[in-house]
This record gives sequence, structure tokens and C-alpha cells, in this order.
Amino acid sequence: MRISELAEVTGSTVTTLKFYLRRGLLQPGHSVTRTQAEYGAEHVERVRLVRALSEVGGLDLAAVGRILEAIGAPDVGRLDVMATAQHALSGERRHESAGEGDDAPRGDERTRAWIAARKWQVDLRDATVDRLSEAWGACDDAGIGLDEGRLDAYADAAERIARIDVASVPPEPAGAVRQVVLGTVLVEPVLAALRLLAQQHMAITGGADPTK
Amino acid sequence: MRISELAEVTGSTVTTLKFYLRRGLLQPGHSVTRTQAEYGAEHVERVRLVRALSEVGGLDLAAVGRILEAIGAPDVGRLDVMATAQHALSGERRHESAGEGDDAPRGDERTRAWIAARKWQVDLRDATVDRLSEAWGACDDAGIGLDEGRLDAYADAAERIARIDVASVPPEPAGAVRQVVLGTVLVEPVLAALRLLAQQHMAITGGADPTK
Repeated sequence: MRISELAEVTGSTVTTLKFYLRRGLLQPGHSVTRTQAEYGAEHVERVRLVRALSEVGGLDLAAVGRILEAIGAPDVGRLDVMATAQHALSGERRHESAGEGDDAPRGDERTRAWIAARKWQVDLRDATVDRLSEAWGACDDAGIGLDEGRLDAYADAAERIARIDVASVPPEPAGAVRQVVLGTVLVEPVLAALRLLAQQHMAITGGADPTK
Repeated sequence: MRISELAEVTGSTVTTLKFYLRRGLLQPGHSVTRTQAEYGAEHVERVRLVRALSEVGGLDLAAVGRILEAIGAPDVGRLDVMATAQHALSGERRHESAGEGDDAPRGDERTRAWIAARKWQVDLRDATVDRLSEAWGACDDAGIGLDEGRLDAYADAAERIARIDVASVPPEPAGAVRQVVLGTVLVEPVLAALRLLAQQHMAITGGADPTK
């Protein structure tokens, strides 16, 4: 199909698709003449994926590009699936485990102490530790009352979620990174909506109605 | 303090603060002369809150404005705290429960059937039902493999989170909406970071390593 048809099928505009092509988010079509290219089912899938990641997942296009790169990497089967996926998401290059002594641990003291007490085996040089530290600090500034105990309770729930995430990764390494990356990004809005609905349910059923 | 000092204390710029003033996100200072106003601790707190909601919570300024409105509403104690909070977040006006027969249920058939099977007592006319429906559909389009069973497993975790959320709301209605709204927005990035770290932990400890 031509680019105008690709736009129609995917509900985009030709302008948007040309922008994706320039940014390398959409693979080029097969040249038919010097000014015309032919697009197929793989292009439709790619456009839908870019839009899902940016519109549903809320990622900027730089992050979308990194994720597409991680998904398309040929030697992906040899890498730790979770680590590859997470680094694509966090925007950090995956650091080498040896020979880089200046990789300082991330996050503030309190966050690192909490992780240690939790006995979570995570890489303290990962950008996610910073994200947790910053998000926790913002809760403090707003007076949310998020102490270690409440964080532990949330972490129990996060472990349940992560167990489902990890169990749902396909056994073949070929599709595993794709699954993990997309699952992490696209399930996030599902979880956010479930949380809001569950709050409603809890408030309506009155089991823990805070107003009573 | 002057507006330049307020900018310095909060790590903003005068341009940003003037923009907040024009948008009504920051309450005006106390006029000293015709061209000069004095700002206090309440302004510092407000600027920090706006920035936390927009930068950490990832909300656009229209949503920040609605949230500030909900937090500041004087008769908030008489309303259902959760509903007020959620409607501020979803950008929908809180519908009246009587006399509006044309409020159609939201979301697709599958989502409503799942909610019914789950026995969640939620308002099917709420925009959150649409959000769940769309996010679930995006997972399908990307081939994530999110079926009813896996959604149920995530919902179990969401119920745990919601129970903590609801239990942490202060008993006085005065601060309750503030707590719920800010908690919902600002805890979201905490939960996202916890999920990533828990994934790492699960993958490293090998209990459910998908590559093995």
C-alpha cells in the first residue's frame, strides 16, 4: 500500500508517518519508483506499536526509539531479558558489570537502606533507584505520610505484580524482550486504572471507608 | 519575600511563577505597592505542590488546576472523598446520581463483563472504565497476552494497593481529599519504580527467571 493508505489504515496522517520515517521509528517502505514506496503489514504493526507506546504508554519519542531498538536487537537472546528491557525504559545505557569502578550507587540514603532491609537483590547503580528516591521525596514534600511501613505494604503488592510480569514472559528468548518491554509500558495504565477502580470498590463497600 | 526570592527558594524562574499566577495555579501575593507583591510560606508550599504534580505526577497543568480546586473546595467534607478525588483526576465533572438517564456506561463489553464477574462495585459511567478498556485494548494490539486471568491477578494486587490507599486517608474530612488526590497522583511513580525493582529482584533471584 502507499503511505496515504498506511495513514488511513492506522488512523494517522501522512505528516505523522513521514515524521516517524525521519526519526527512524518507522522502517522505510520498499522503493517502487524513485519517489514512491510500498508499505506492508509490518509497517501497520509498527505504526500501531509506536502510537501505543507514545499515546497509551505516555513515552516520549526518544524512549519509543530506544524501546524499538531493544526489541529489534538480534543478539537479544544472550542478554538478561529483564535488564535489557529495563534499560531501554530508563534511558540508561546498560553498564558493564566489570571495569567501571566509578559507577556510584543511586538514590538517597533512606531509599538504599530500605532496599537493603527489604533484601531486594537489585542493582543500586540502576536509574530506577533514583526514580524511587525522587518519587518518595515528592510524597514527603506533599505530606502524604508514606513511611517505610506503608512502602513495604506497597512493595508486597509490587512483588505480586512483578511475579505475574515475569511469569508471563515467553520461554523463547526471541520474543522475550519485546514482551517484557511492551508489558512493562502498556500494562502500567492498566494497573493505574485498576487501582482507581479498586479504590472506588473499597470506598463503596465501606470495608475501609475513610469518611466513617 | 519578593517573587524573585520565591523563584530562588523553590528552584523555579520568575517567568514560570508568573505563568502559574496567570493560570490561577498560584494564589496572588499580598500587594505592597502597585507593582510589587509579597509572598509567604503558603506560596512556597503551593509552588512545590504544582511542580510535584506536574513533574513527578506527570499531569498537565489543566489537571493540576482541577486538583488544586478539589483540594481547596470548602464543602469537601460533605462529599464522598474518593469520588471527589477521582473525578478531579479523571477530568470529568462529577455526575449527579439522579435525573440523568442518558449517562451511558463506559468501556467495551469485555471490560464491563470482567468488572461484573469481579463483583467490583464501581460506577460504570466513570471515565476510569474507559481508561481500563483502552489500556487493555492497547495490550491486545501489541500482543501482550493480557487475558482475563492475568487481569484478575493484577486486580488482586490492585486491591491490596487500594486497601493501603484507603486506610491511609486521615479521618478528618478536611484533609482527606487532599490526601487522597495527592496520594493517588504522587504514589503512582513510587509504585511504578517498585514494580521495576521487584521485576529485577524476581529475575535475579531466579524464582521465575523467564530465560531459563
